[in-house]
Amino acid sequence: MDTQTLKKLLSAVSKGETQVDEALSELSNLYTENIDYANIDHHRSLRKGFPEVIFGQGKTAEQICGIISHMKVHENVILATRLDHEKALAVLEKFPEANYFEDAKILVLKKKEPEITGRGTIAVISAGTSDIPIAREAAITAQVMGNHVETVFDVGVAGIHRLFEHKKLLEEAVVIVVVAGMEGALPSVIAGLVKSPVIAVPTSVGYGVSFGGLTALFAMLNSCSSNVAVVNIDNGFGAGYMAAMINKS
Amino acid sequence: MDTQTLKKLLSAVSKGETQVDEALSELSNLYTENIDYANIDHHRSLRKGFPEVIFGQGKTAEQICGIISHMKVHENVILATRLDHEKALAVLEKFPEANYFEDAKILVLKKKEPEITGRGTIAVISAGTSDIPIAREAAITAQVMGNHVETVFDVGVAGIHRLFEHKKLLEEAVVIVVVAGMEGALPSVIAGLVKSPVIAVPTSVGYGVSFGGLTALFAMLNSCSSNVAVVNIDNGFGAGYMAAMINKS
Amino acid sequence: MDTQTLKKLLSAVSKGETQVDEALSELSNLYTENIDYANIDHHRSLRKGFPEVIFGQGKTAEQICGIISHMKVHENVILATRLDHEKALAVLEKFPEANYFEDAKILVLKKKEPEITGRGTIAVISAGTSDIPIAREAAITAQVMGNHVETVFDVGVAGIHRLFEHKKLLEEAVVIVVVAGMEGALPSVIAGLVKSPVIAVPTSVGYGVSFGGLTALFAMLNSCSSNVAVVNIDNGFGAGYMAAMINKS
Amino acid sequence: MDTQTLKKLLSAVSKGETQVDEALSELSNLYTENIDYANIDHHRSLRKGFPEVIFGQGKTAEQICGIISHMKVHENVILATRLDHEKALAVLEKFPEANYFEDAKILVLKKKEPEITGRGTIAVISAGTSDIPIAREAAITAQVMGNHVETVFDVGVAGIHRLFEHKKLLEEAVVIVVVAGMEGALPSVIAGLVKSPVIAVPTSVGYGVSFGGLTALFAMLNSCSSNVAVVNIDNGFGAGYMAAMINKS
Amino acid sequence: MDTQTLKKLLSAVSKGETQVDEALSELSNLYTENIDYANIDHHRSLRKGFPEVIFGQGKTAEQICGIISHMKVHENVILATRLDHEKALAVLEKFPEANYFEDAKILVLKKKEPEITGRGTIAVISAGTSDIPIAREAAITAQVMGNHVETVFDVGVAGIHRLFEHKKLLEEAVVIVVVAGMEGALPSVIAGLVKSPVIAVPTSVGYGVSFGGLTALFAMLNSCSSNVAVVNIDNGFGAGYMAAMINKS
Amino acid sequence: MDTQTLKKLLSAVSKGETQVDEALSELSNLYTENIDYANIDHHRSLRKGFPEVIFGQGKTAEQICGIISHMKVHENVILATRLDHEKALAVLEKFPEANYFEDAKILVLKKKEPEITGRGTIAVISAGTSDIPIAREAAITAQVMGNHVETVFDVGVAGIHRLFEHKKLLEEAVVIVVVAGMEGALPSVIAGLVKSPVIAVPTSVGYGVSFGGLTALFAMLNSCSSNVAVVNIDNGFGAGYMAAMINKS
Amino acid sequence: MDTQTLKKLLSAVSKGETQVDEALSELSNLYTENIDYANIDHHRSLRKGFPEVIFGQGKTAEQICGIISHMKVHENVILATRLDHEKALAVLEKFPEANYFEDAKILVLKKKEPEITGRGTIAVISAGTSDIPIAREAAITAQVMGNHVETVFDVGVAGIHRLFEHKKLLEEAVVIVVVAGMEGALPSVIAGLVKSPVIAVPTSVGYGVSFGGLTALFAMLNSCSSNVAVVNIDNGFGAGYMAAMINKS
Amino acid sequence: MDTQTLKKLLSAVSKGETQVDEALSELSNLYTENIDYANIDHHRSLRKGFPEVIFGQGKTAEQICGIISHMKVHENVILATRLDHEKALAVLEKFPEANYFEDAKILVLKKKEPEITGRGTIAVISAGTSDIPIAREAAITAQVMGNHVETVFDVGVAGIHRLFEHKKLLEEAVVIVVVAGMEGALPSVIAGLVKSPVIAVPTSVGYGVSFGGLTALFAMLNSCSSNVAVVNIDNGFGAGYMAAMINKS
Repeated sequence: MDTQTLKKLLSAVSKGETQVDEALSELSNLYTENIDYANIDHHRSLRKGFPEVIFGQGKTAEQICGIISHMKVHENVILATRLDHEKALAVLEKFPEANYFEDAKILVLKKKEPEITGRGTIAVISAGTSDIPIAREAAITAQVMGNHVETVFDVGVAGIHRLFEHKKLLEEAVVIVVVAGMEGALPSVIAGLVKSPVIAVPTSVGYGVSFGGLTALFAMLNSCSSNVAVVNIDNGFGAGYMAAMINKS
Repeated sequence: MDTQTLKKLLSAVSKGETQVDEALSELSNLYTENIDYANIDHHRSLRKGFPEVIFGQGKTAEQICGIISHMKVHENVILATRLDHEKALAVLEKFPEANYFEDAKILVLKKKEPEITGRGTIAVISAGTSDIPIAREAAITAQVMGNHVETVFDVGVAGIHRLFEHKKLLEEAVVIVVVAGMEGALPSVIAGLVKSPVIAVPTSVGYGVSFGGLTALFAMLNSCSSNVAVVNIDNGFGAGYMAAMINKS
Repeated sequence: MDTQTLKKLLSAVSKGETQVDEALSELSNLYTENIDYANIDHHRSLRKGFPEVIFGQGKTAEQICGIISHMKVHENVILATRLDHEKALAVLEKFPEANYFEDAKILVLKKKEPEITGRGTIAVISAGTSDIPIAREAAITAQVMGNHVETVFDVGVAGIHRLFEHKKLLEEAVVIVVVAGMEGALPSVIAGLVKSPVIAVPTSVGYGVSFGGLTALFAMLNSCSSNVAVVNIDNGFGAGYMAAMINKS
Repeated sequence: MDTQTLKKLLSAVSKGETQVDEALSELSNLYTENIDYANIDHHRSLRKGFPEVIFGQGKTAEQICGIISHMKVHENVILATRLDHEKALAVLEKFPEANYFEDAKILVLKKKEPEITGRGTIAVISAGTSDIPIAREAAITAQVMGNHVETVFDVGVAGIHRLFEHKKLLEEAVVIVVVAGMEGALPSVIAGLVKSPVIAVPTSVGYGVSFGGLTALFAMLNSCSSNVAVVNIDNGFGAGYMAAMINKS
Repeated sequence: MDTQTLKKLLSAVSKGETQVDEALSELSNLYTENIDYANIDHHRSLRKGFPEVIFGQGKTAEQICGIISHMKVHENVILATRLDHEKALAVLEKFPEANYFEDAKILVLKKKEPEITGRGTIAVISAGTSDIPIAREAAITAQVMGNHVETVFDVGVAGIHRLFEHKKLLEEAVVIVVVAGMEGALPSVIAGLVKSPVIAVPTSVGYGVSFGGLTALFAMLNSCSSNVAVVNIDNGFGAGYMAAMINKS
Repeated sequence: MDTQTLKKLLSAVSKGETQVDEALSELSNLYTENIDYANIDHHRSLRKGFPEVIFGQGKTAEQICGIISHMKVHENVILATRLDHEKALAVLEKFPEANYFEDAKILVLKKKEPEITGRGTIAVISAGTSDIPIAREAAITAQVMGNHVETVFDVGVAGIHRLFEHKKLLEEAVVIVVVAGMEGALPSVIAGLVKSPVIAVPTSVGYGVSFGGLTALFAMLNSCSSNVAVVNIDNGFGAGYMAAMINKS
Repeated sequence: MDTQTLKKLLSAVSKGETQVDEALSELSNLYTENIDYANIDHHRSLRKGFPEVIFGQGKTAEQICGIISHMKVHENVILATRLDHEKALAVLEKFPEANYFEDAKILVLKKKEPEITGRGTIAVISAGTSDIPIAREAAITAQVMGNHVETVFDVGVAGIHRLFEHKKLLEEAVVIVVVAGMEGALPSVIAGLVKSPVIAVPTSVGYGVSFGGLTALFAMLNSCSSNVAVVNIDNGFGAGYMAAMINKS
Repeated sequence: MDTQTLKKLLSAVSKGETQVDEALSELSNLYTENIDYANIDHHRSLRKGFPEVIFGQGKTAEQICGIISHMKVHENVILATRLDHEKALAVLEKFPEANYFEDAKILVLKKKEPEITGRGTIAVISAGTSDIPIAREAAITAQVMGNHVETVFDVGVAGIHRLFEHKKLLEEAVVIVVVAGMEGALPSVIAGLVKSPVIAVPTSVGYGVSFGGLTALFAMLNSCSSNVAVVNIDNGFGAGYMAAMINKS
């Protein structure tokens, strides 16, 4: 339930169009709704500007469908992340109006298109072909949350001239999400070129001492450029969310 | 050298007030100035909106003084971080106009007060008494970079009611820096209450499996609140810098 | 064999109802019974108040059935933990009177309902939907051991107001088991609110630097609340057992 | 401020012996008192049955004295842990009535002897001579919190017959604290002999792959006895506190 | 080729029964025989008293059969370790005279029974039911190498009285192999009781912070008993081999 | 596109045989060609002497075929590494002229045989049978890049006399690639015998504390011979590439 | 108290030369003697063939002197390890008849020379100059325990021909202790040459990824030679003790 | 002893100028010379082209002087690394003709200037001011070994334009040594620009998750440029040695 829906309800009450008891019942669900396996935090859209996001990993398709059903009553847009192919099919069968992005493993259910409310452009840059799914997870999240997003893929530091072709976008973006695995050097190089904040996302791409993304994570936290902050490995969603929050703050 | 200084120089050239050769010489130093042990990046104020910051650890007092001397010609404000007491004394002797903040181990040399150019307030919150030095490193950095900063110290999760007294500040801040050691739980709790972006700073406070801040770092990267991004352990400077960039973007 | 059974046997001997040789033979098995692949510790119910618990992982269904057969002669309740679906089916075929809890992967075989012998209530709280199986492993263990147990699921720190609705239960419980993955912050917050001991259980829920539960484990060991002790990752059984011992001590 | 003091104040108000304004002022300090570098949680004695404990590491002697001064007004007993020799001297100069335990690095300031309120005996057992300081930190903490404590030192598993001489104490104790470094095997062996809960404390004693206590910590978390829960490395204070809470719950 | 075979060959040459050329050819293979994917070290039986052992993991069934074929010409006993079920079947089809021990994943091909050449008994003790396969790998290896071996399984430290029933065996054995997972405490306890050398084998049994056997390994290396040396995790073969070498040295 | 092709094009332009527009179009692709999921760096052959190599892991067969199609226009030889059996079949169907090396998981597509341009011989040595696939990955890479390569397999340090038979090769080689898993000791021993540079490749062969190759990696980095540098675990390709660069530098 | 002393006492009792009460008193101290900070295990010489060894690290000079005083009554030889210079001086002042070995940090107090009771020679080999102190700790321990010991220092694998000059000693020794830091390769090479058991001691010599001896430790546990078992980092004492036990078993 | 000295000796023998006995005696020292605490490998200059280098860490000043004295008889140049200030003073007192480089902690003793025998230029590049000592260790080593060396300091990736000014040097160098701490990104960027082999040296510069250079090390091993091989953390000497070997091979 967003602020507008709430205002409408309260106006209706003040005008006598809605009974106090009716309103009370609806509002009482605003805080947390307990559906046995989940304690849905409906208050979150009001408090945080975006409803709770469903973390798909470790939940059954049935649980996810149940949560969507309850959220759908109150929210304009629902996001489920880390949803594998099989679970997504089960959810799509029940909610055919949803969109599933296979590579990014993200499912979006929108009642209407999100309004663009961000202050400017969010750039999402990825270092290698294998980093694209995480970069797309970030981009889709930010778009769904009402932001203009531009993406540039496969511009790693081993051929650094490829990056310079996109200097204009880098300089204009309000916030930049940089996705990289292996040695994770791209955020440092990009952050050294611009004055906007950079959200770095390490990916689990690599082998041997890439340690499933730990090396990239630590490299990014050690960035010799100071306008860099970091999210968890493969957390494209978190980076997109954080970028959206910055673009709106 | 900031944009205004540059414009003035170019105007002077166009009006014939400054000779081309003279201007050339001055501009040629804009990029990098090599002083044997350092390659000063004067171009950085133009490119990034704030001059290069001197990382004091691992440099001698002589090297630091040398770099300050060269930077002082072009910049309005100079920041040196991770400066221990002894080196600071040596620098203060040469530059008595500088301010040294003992606990935060930061030295500031300002030609004039920085203008407040940030969009709103940056809140800096710390969990325990021992986290204060890092919190102050963040706060001073953000202030020097032209931001309005408010601080709240010692509001850890073991007595969570202490936090709720500051709810208004948390809700109004454009960006929040949260500093915590040990289990590093505070950023999750705060980020769950607000819609602004949270920059989390793990500190090396603790013993045993605090692993010098690693546990707090990993806990923060695992935050179940999504509006959190993280910087290196004890990197108060980086958090203040990142917050400043967000507040200006 | 519990204390009552033992008394009865000794009384029977003293009254001449049971022959010494007969009693001797029965008692000689009290200590350890060697069945080739296991050395069953029948003495444990006397020594520890609860019989040996079968650790299902790494044993074959045949071995588990064999151990149950030997234990059933002497014990009123038998517990097998970490039993996957397939093994459980094989055991249930042989012991259809047993109950298998699929999500908690625990099997219980009771001759009669356990008497409630604990001093008060044990509360079992979990942070997220995905932590429920481990929370239930703890709750079932404590119940089977003769305790009154209350559970609250999905009250993580990202929406901390959800927790405060259960303040009364938290304050009344003799001991609280808190189950959490990811940043593992919930035990600190809960322990800060109460005077009872808190047993914290880290879960392997998460990805990236959750390190399969290590981050939650270390965060819990670093708790800034002092009434917290910790068990192994995903060790719901151990937490329930420890809570039962505290509630009875 | 404990419950009795609070009752007395409220009675005085009800009888008109104390003015409302006066009482208000006193009570307003009950929650948190902000003394610049600390946010003292006076409410804690009421909420948790024991006042906030001062974590000495990372605070200056001046800060510690300041906190003691403010706490002394409201509390009967004050505990400061991890206080090195030098800081302790400075505190003792200001508060000569305090006791400092050099090896346990703990300082106690009591207005009167704590009443024994625990249900039974707490046993504190240590494996080696070098583990004694941590064992004493646990014992003193539990004693100060109003418990009867018995200690047995230097009964490691390399000469396991030394342990069996203390079987009676082990069987009678309501809760047992076991302190061990190196391979950390003692808690498993003891917990296998008794039905009471065991709080295991790993110590940083050892070299090479003792990893400053990590090996002992992990061994204890892997205990094949189930009535074991663990606290942080060298956290004698936490173990004593937890044992006290169990003995009173 | 063992020393006796070699002597016979040389005698035959000295007596003219074998031609020098013939002997030369046979001896030239004694050192290393290159069969494309392996460089078989036939010299090893002479140098080390036992032929090269085939490490089955990471080799194909074809490669293993090929190596056996070449070794069979010169050796009385061939051992292949870490051989999974499928590969073992393929090898047994080609060498039906071999014995495969399913749980220990070891295959033995003997031309004749090995003579008992060890000085005394080797005891192999294991802590839990799940440690049995590794204990058997050690026992079979030592037996095949010509030693008298006795085994005791499932005598873990949580019920330490089970161990004392075997005190006579422990005191008489020339060398003791102790196999344990989880907290790995058994070798310390046993080594504290005897004067013979103890070879400790950590197993990967456990979950959470057992770290696949690392915790047991480190605990064993930290043993407060000094007559303990350790081999790699799950390396039952190595322990049996080392014990055999000690028993023969 | 190599230097010769470029010269020919420029000559053709200077002679008027090729129109400027035509040349421009061809050259514009020289830098980077963006094919949606990849940003192919055609400039690399000019800059680095060998075209970009396709990292097969984490790319789909379709993506790999797409990249090959675009590269084939400009390059004489194309290399794809870490290509599993299934993907290789799909690529071979589309490019039947390619060669796939199953054990080394490498695919080579050559328009013509590479000219031998290296200064001398590259020796590739491996310690065990299980290290052969990585050794072959190194050897094939170096051959394809125009070098004379000699290989010696299965000469580990447990039978060090096997190594000395190859002393002549070791002394003559311009650069030596040494591949080893487990304790990773072979590079130290070989480097101690020669004056040429040694590229050490740790492999993930082993179990327990081999840590998937980390132990070998760290051992190699600690080599007490100084003419050793190291590449990532299982990075046979990188070692072959580096050796080729040294042999040509 | 060793077996001979005990026999003498018992004979004296049987002959009436010693009163039962007198003997009782003396024997009662045989088991454990509690001297406040230590629980001395006098029974150990009988049980294990050598008295308890004093682990000097973490004990004060006073404690060490106290323990020596009590042990001296019953034992012929007393060993204290890990004793730094300062503590050793304090001990020598009180027990001037003791010998202190500065580099090995070991102190020996002998009533008479130990009789050589081992079956043969123990060889102690070290890889580098910096490993000598640990090698000497092993050698002294084994000598004091009644063994013939031969040492060879500085024969690391970077110049492997240095090792071969000592082949005869290696082949004749009953057991070999090999001490090495950095890549820890020497035990594998030596064990490959002989049939005797090898006790490997990793040392903390090195920097960077030597990780204070962990790399050497893991390399040794991964040895491709099977007659190797390992002790803790820098545990020369343990290796000497283990070798002595093997040489006597 | 280098090849020329050896030839001269042998010629003298063949011409009868030197007696066979005399030559024998001199040659017998060629292999290893045992001076109690060291086994000097005089054969190394012949075998490897450069004499043994003295690793100063962990040796006393006396030992180092002793080794220099023995080496000086046979060698033209002697190198001692990781020599702290105090030891260096002691060595310089005995060998005043030596040069000590304070920051690089390296001591050089030359009988005559080394002849330039390398094929081309070795470039040594460092990322930050604090990396200079390690870079200089590499440069001095390579120079002493007879190479032309060029250095560029402080050209980190946060201001990447500083690097491009040195493109000519990078392209011409036969081999490039790149020294960097923190995120260790510089080797990837440089290796992407050139065709020569790059030796990467991680430094221990940084804090928090720089892990004393481990993050830089792992980042370099993960380099997405293939012409990179890596040496141990802070191993400037090894990098310079390896570069020298490549430049001469």
